[in-house]
Amino acid sequence: MLNFTFQNPTKIIFGKGTVSQLAEQVKPFGTRVLLVYGGGSIKRTGLYDKVIEQLKSIDAAVFELPGVEPNPRVTTVRKGIDICRKEDVQLILAVGGGSVIDAAKAIAVGVPYEGDVWDFFERKAQPASALPLGTILTLSATGSEANGNFVISNWELKLKRGSGSQHAYPRFSILDPELTYTVPREHVVNGIVDMMSHVFEQYFSKTPNTPLQERFCESILQTVIENAETALAKPTDYDARANIMWCGTMALNGGQISLGMQGDWATHEIEHQVSAIYDIAHGAGLAIIFPNWMKYVYKERVDRFVQYATRVWNIDPAGKSDEEVALAGIEATREFFTRIGAPATLSDVGIGDEHLDQMAAEAVRFGPIGQFKELHQEDVKEILRMSL
Amino acid sequence: MLNFTFQNPTKIIFGKGTVSQLAEQVKPFGTRVLLVYGGGSIKRTGLYDKVIEQLKSIDAAVFELPGVEPNPRVTTVRKGIDICRKEDVQLILAVGGGSVIDAAKAIAVGVPYEGDVWDFFERKAQPASALPLGTILTLSATGSEANGNFVISNWELKLKRGSGSQHAYPRFSILDPELTYTVPREHVVNGIVDMMSHVFEQYFSKTPNTPLQERFCESILQTVIENAETALAKPTDYDARANIMWCGTMALNGGQISLGMQGDWATHEIEHQVSAIYDIAHGAGLAIIFPNWMKYVYKERVDRFVQYATRVWNIDPAGKSDEEVALAGIEATREFFTRIGAPATLSDVGIGDEHLDQMAAEAVRFGPIGQFKELHQEDVKEILRMSL
Repeated sequence: MLNFTFQNPTKIIFGKGTVSQLAEQVKPFGTRVLLVYGGGSIKRTGLYDKVIEQLKSIDAAVFELPGVEPNPRVTTVRKGIDICRKEDVQLILAVGGGSVIDAAKAIAVGVPYEGDVWDFFERKAQPASALPLGTILTLSATGSEANGNFVISNWELKLKRGSGSQHAYPRFSILDPELTYTVPREHVVNGIVDMMSHVFEQYFSKTPNTPLQERFCESILQTVIENAETALAKPTDYDARANIMWCGTMALNGGQISLGMQGDWATHEIEHQVSAIYDIAHGAGLAIIFPNWMKYVYKERVDRFVQYATRVWNIDPAGKSDEEVALAGIEATREFFTRIGAPATLSDVGIGDEHLDQMAAEAVRFGPIGQFKELHQEDVKEILRMSL
Repeated sequence: MLNFTFQNPTKIIFGKGTVSQLAEQVKPFGTRVLLVYGGGSIKRTGLYDKVIEQLKSIDAAVFELPGVEPNPRVTTVRKGIDICRKEDVQLILAVGGGSVIDAAKAIAVGVPYEGDVWDFFERKAQPASALPLGTILTLSATGSEANGNFVISNWELKLKRGSGSQHAYPRFSILDPELTYTVPREHVVNGIVDMMSHVFEQYFSKTPNTPLQERFCESILQTVIENAETALAKPTDYDARANIMWCGTMALNGGQISLGMQGDWATHEIEHQVSAIYDIAHGAGLAIIFPNWMKYVYKERVDRFVQYATRVWNIDPAGKSDEEVALAGIEATREFFTRIGAPATLSDVGIGDEHLDQMAAEAVRFGPIGQFKELHQEDVKEILRMSL
């Protein structure tokens, strides 16, 4: 186990009807609020009206930034920063999934920064402070509701990049599983793949002596796998939706489940290059790439893949070599993704081999990626090629 | 899963040599520090000197409250409150195990309170604020380093009572597994029993639909069980000590592993009555009572005990009834406690049947206890009788 420091200040308010606690959560921060949301589904579901009613009850001045994209753009972030500065906003309230929350985080750290917010993604600057941020989560996926990470796309430069800061943790996040009932099936599927991928990035590690952390990871994976099909078949099954929601948050709760472990995160980096060019959903990209990453790297530490196969997928090791067990676990992962309706190949989402070199080059722009196995440009290209 | 709200503000600094980060952690809170510690082992091990060196490096004015008892007394807490008020202390620094940290928490909430600190334990008042508190943990056991709970004894009244407050969470806690190398074996054993008991209090619950929470609990129990004997046999085995330490913190990290579950906590309440009168170690009392509580209540929900037996103890259910599997898990618990050297009966620690009625009456002074099975005075007496 490596040394670590951990602090997660986010207050989680979880359960049925918890949007009714919004006003009391907002009030300590002030009453000038920027409401950030996406394509308008919150208006169709009535959530928008509930939020406005809560904010009206404390006489809040509400400014709005609608239309945050699924892969949120830096242009949208800049718009939000302008509104905050012009209107002296005191709290940013993100209502949506990971994209909306990520955009709100970038706005929050961008407001007090004198330069352009893209500097954070170019690693030219680090956030030194942030406007307070609260969230209402409507889609279980990224864990952004309880961590300091955010990913933004720059469409002009065809770049999708992540940043992170202790200042970007939401002050509070309201998680009501009922709000996820109306999410389109495809997004639920992508969210499930995304949270499982977050666990994979932490779990496939070479750091020795981390038994509790490994079990926490396995706990989340098993619980997601057990609840996913019910959550998809019966969108109003509270229990299944609540379990999936809590798994999504804990999967990337500031990295708490894997403290003291070195994470990998190469697959996320590779996927970002695909969705930067093709604007596909992050979860879809991960579903395509992750099993191929696994096949490419598993020999680095077969024992961890054997543990994954036996503990998470209940693969019976009797009569099999370690390699066979490991490969059976990887195969089970692919089969599960396919069973819940995720794509398996880049061609499934209409992507050919035109930009493999460009994507591979961009993935390693700051040097080789990955800790479980260090990947160079040619490795990334091969994983993408396996994903065609 | 029940609705819940969770926020744990404690910053955890974990690993080898992390005491060297003390000065930078203290500084933001000020330089007038009350150093709270126990019987002086920190002087023998050299930790005291390291702490003083760190505090001197920021020119801190250090006041001391040594001699905190294993079951810390309210009289000691009152002394600490007096020092803080007289010397305008800005930060309380607890260096020790759960008792020292609990005393420091009671001091922290007591300083700004106008009445007597015992009011909090009589439920006459609730803490409204607190002096900032930092900790350096030297014994893995209570989880007090990362939660808002504290237990204090009133020797004149022969009472031992708990309180808790969001204000009592440490601002930072330094956890260096190497600091536990010199802890006497008996305390290590008691600590292991204590952290397992914390998990039991959360895990044996009737709240439906909490699969992730149950797995988190099982993860901690399995990891403690796997590491306990090595940690005891080789006190300087960093890996084992680190795993035990992290398990102890996560076992009662503000109740995070069991969010949305109703906890039981009857056994803690019963044990407090025993150690209030006999001043035995909390962990010793828990080791004696918990398996008897299990035997007394398991029929309330045999399935949870079957799950415990099979997942945590790998009991093979083949050819056994559910009751037999459940009882085998309880028996495995007792055997494990005995194997690591914990006492099994009250007579093992020199306690007879003289005060059973008094202890049972005091345990239910605020009404029946326990959620898994509601216990009245006669139930508590029977569990104590089974423990003789």
